[in-house]
Amino acid sequence: MSTQGKGGEAFVKDITPQSEDFSRWYLDVVLKAELADYSPVKGCMVIRPYGYAIWEQIQRQLDDRFKATGHVNAYFPLFIPESLLLKEAEHVEGFAPQVAWVTKGGTEELEEKLIVRPTSETIIGVMYQKWIQSWRDLPVLINQWANVVRWEKVTRPFLRTTEFLWQEGHTAHETADEAQEETLKILALYKEFAENVLAMPVVDGQKSESEKFAGASKTYSIESLMGDGRALQAGTSHNLGQNFAKAFEIQFQGRDKTLQHVWTTSWGVSTRLIGGVIMTHGDDSGLILPPKLAPWQVVIVPIPRGNWKETVLPKCEEIRDQLRAAGIRVKLDADDSNTPGWKFAEYEMRGVPLRLEIGPKDIEKSSVFAARRDTRAKQALPMDGLAQTIVALLDEIQAAMLERARAFRESHTSATTSYDEFTRMMEGRPGFVQSPWCGAAQCETDIKAETQATIRNIPFGFEQAPDAPCIKCGRPATVTAWFAKAY
Amino acid sequence: MSTQGKGGEAFVKDITPQSEDFSRWYLDVVLKAELADYSPVKGCMVIRPYGYAIWEQIQRQLDDRFKATGHVNAYFPLFIPESLLLKEAEHVEGFAPQVAWVTKGGTEELEEKLIVRPTSETIIGVMYQKWIQSWRDLPVLINQWANVVRWEKVTRPFLRTTEFLWQEGHTAHETADEAQEETLKILALYKEFAENVLAMPVVDGQKSESEKFAGASKTYSIESLMGDGRALQAGTSHNLGQNFAKAFEIQFQGRDKTLQHVWTTSWGVSTRLIGGVIMTHGDDSGLILPPKLAPWQVVIVPIPRGNWKETVLPKCEEIRDQLRAAGIRVKLDADDSNTPGWKFAEYEMRGVPLRLEIGPKDIEKSSVFAARRDTRAKQALPMDGLAQTIVALLDEIQAAMLERARAFRESHTSATTSYDEFTRMMEGRPGFVQSPWCGAAQCETDIKAETQATIRNIPFGFEQAPDAPCIKCGRPATVTAWFAKAY
Repeated sequence: MSTQGKGGEAFVKDITPQSEDFSRWYLDVVLKAELADYSPVKGCMVIRPYGYAIWEQIQRQLDDRFKATGHVNAYFPLFIPESLLLKEAEHVEGFAPQVAWVTKGGTEELEEKLIVRPTSETIIGVMYQKWIQSWRDLPVLINQWANVVRWEKVTRPFLRTTEFLWQEGHTAHETADEAQEETLKILALYKEFAENVLAMPVVDGQKSESEKFAGASKTYSIESLMGDGRALQAGTSHNLGQNFAKAFEIQFQGRDKTLQHVWTTSWGVSTRLIGGVIMTHGDDSGLILPPKLAPWQVVIVPIPRGNWKETVLPKCEEIRDQLRAAGIRVKLDADDSNTPGWKFAEYEMRGVPLRLEIGPKDIEKSSVFAARRDTRAKQALPMDGLAQTIVALLDEIQAAMLERARAFRESHTSATTSYDEFTRMMEGRPGFVQSPWCGAAQCETDIKAETQATIRNIPFGFEQAPDAPCIKCGRPATVTAWFAKAY
Repeated sequence: MSTQGKGGEAFVKDITPQSEDFSRWYLDVVLKAELADYSPVKGCMVIRPYGYAIWEQIQRQLDDRFKATGHVNAYFPLFIPESLLLKEAEHVEGFAPQVAWVTKGGTEELEEKLIVRPTSETIIGVMYQKWIQSWRDLPVLINQWANVVRWEKVTRPFLRTTEFLWQEGHTAHETADEAQEETLKILALYKEFAENVLAMPVVDGQKSESEKFAGASKTYSIESLMGDGRALQAGTSHNLGQNFAKAFEIQFQGRDKTLQHVWTTSWGVSTRLIGGVIMTHGDDSGLILPPKLAPWQVVIVPIPRGNWKETVLPKCEEIRDQLRAAGIRVKLDADDSNTPGWKFAEYEMRGVPLRLEIGPKDIEKSSVFAARRDTRAKQALPMDGLAQTIVALLDEIQAAMLERARAFRESHTSATTSYDEFTRMMEGRPGFVQSPWCGAAQCETDIKAETQATIRNIPFGFEQAPDAPCIKCGRPATVTAWFAKAY
């Protein structure tokens, strides 16, 4: 199902260069690497098998982490009765304008309209009210893998779509401290996952009041920096305090026999992470996937010379099996209707971290020819001990990709205390700009209106009052906020 | 989150005996074993963590089988524009009366109404039309794990719910033969999975015309027999012929350069399988799970005597770690707010295949006391080589459960050529009844109206004309159909 035909076509994959038009480059990569496609439903994408294989890696590796920290999965209904949405005042205000409404079921008009879940705090609140009676029932540590729908006006594959896939954790605790601890534990889990698996360095911190989740007491986020200097919110963790517990009457008998409201949290990451990976690592040849995330970590391309099917191919199969036995995800592409040159371009575009070329001469020398996707470095590797060599090489690529992305972020992070300088910087795409802020929503709103920059978060370590006044209003600053233009 | 409070309550779990009311028994088990719960949305259930853990086992083990047979996963939109549903005449007739309609998105009425997918042939058809151009693009072997919605009047947890979780495979092929081969390959895969993992023997065969999928050329099913003598359709595999290819103009250039329509299939199993497992194996004490499916294959219950936390508990932890290292899914319940007796009843109800009790006397004798859930047989097992012993014992339980279910089915399968006898049998719940049938839909309809029995399928090996005439009309029979009252 390649978009390119077979049999010796042009190798050029027609990807717009990043420098020419980053947005166009992004869409080209998404479509040509067959990660996703447009669908006949406005704002909804189809996640194609290669894109979905990346999502499966994200799911599996995150799910392992959730389970290792004591969480279990469950599944709650897709539909939420309108009356439930209305129970938490801030929540309904935030979500009502962007939900899809089901008004008819089968042949009958519904007495009460249903919304398609944009998030599940409300329907889960009803169940927790039923399930939780005593402090012995706490904590409840449940996660859900699900689709959600938010009616969006402007959409872009993976980054913002009407329907998207995500996980949403919903936990209930006995005390405020435990809820806060959970909120931060998950934020740290997200950061570790983003950095170690996606090779995507993130800034972790607290969102401003105006950017927090509708209904939360505090929202924390991880923010990453894309190749065009715009920031991407990659995950959020909310301390919901007792807001939903009070709206849904989730009460328990405490150790002291008094009736108390639980303290809840919620947290999520979505298929948006795939967009983040594309824009963190990709280049003009297409995708570059970190080895821990790549559906195929290694692709083997046999070089067809002479009677290669009797000589080269069996060796390729032997090496494929060796690598598989070492736990490496490997694809052997022995399709002889495409040339090696076409395959090189194809798997480069698809971001496979390491390509092995094997021809008669390599076999003579008892070596394989290896090409790294990230640095494009090429070297001969001895067949002897190949699996161990490649395991080490994949680790090296993983580390190098994180390092490169971190260096990019550092070179695109600056600080200023002057609003003049700030506005000049924001005429371009400077990355993150650290500036003192007084904490007033008005300053935040004015800055956004004038420069398009928003406060991404107040990173840990930046919550104390700086020496300089608020960059906007000149009153005393309370924190140093990290600003950026964002997706 | 146990429904029972802690601290020495009654052990009796208040499950209605099967013999008293099988339906009530089923609901009691679903609710008390915390597999699912009712939700505030009519017809939609909540799958609780223990039920979802069973679904995760089903997903993981089926997904491995799909991938081993060359299938890949993808994700298509939840919503389908009304115009797409209308394209295949039989399909729309079958599904239109039972879909949920989205008529409003955000604040605006939609120009074209959307349905929430009841199944995805139509939306996938549009994409295949776009993706498939040449015979080189075939076969397309895609599966989707998703939620679907069918507006049902009468619902029952797992067996029939408005929203349910399933997988739907959708494949496209170059020839009619290849599509038929795929249809039967998947049916065989379902049968192998049902029998080897769920320990649920199934009858595989072809559905009658009136029971086939709306839009299919042929539908095959696996049918299992529940403990009350009613049949359950446990999975279906459809050969769609060129019906959807023609409706959606899915064409390719063939090897002979002519433009041809592809041949498609679709196939699915759902969370209904969990209902099937409950009703195949369960007894008056609750659930009995086959070891290959059980989230916990073994539960260890320490017997609290003397200073057990210093003596018994460390031994229990050591054994838990040994079993885990051998790949066994094991839970150690060391919660001292519940008594051993309470735990015995609790894990029996939850169907854990094997319980190990470990107290000071067992440790003295260097053995553990093991109780099988399926036979309730109890025996001391030497600690020496315990992991291997238990691996073998779990295999033995798995095989015994399949054998027992098979024997039950055989003792509840009979044959008759007399319609009088047939109707008398169907006054009870006889299980499967094999009878000659002429192939006419009218006979099928009349039999259903008069006896509530439906043709479950025509099993392989029963498609040839029998010696006797049609049990209903007396004209020549063409096949031997398997009838049953069904869920």
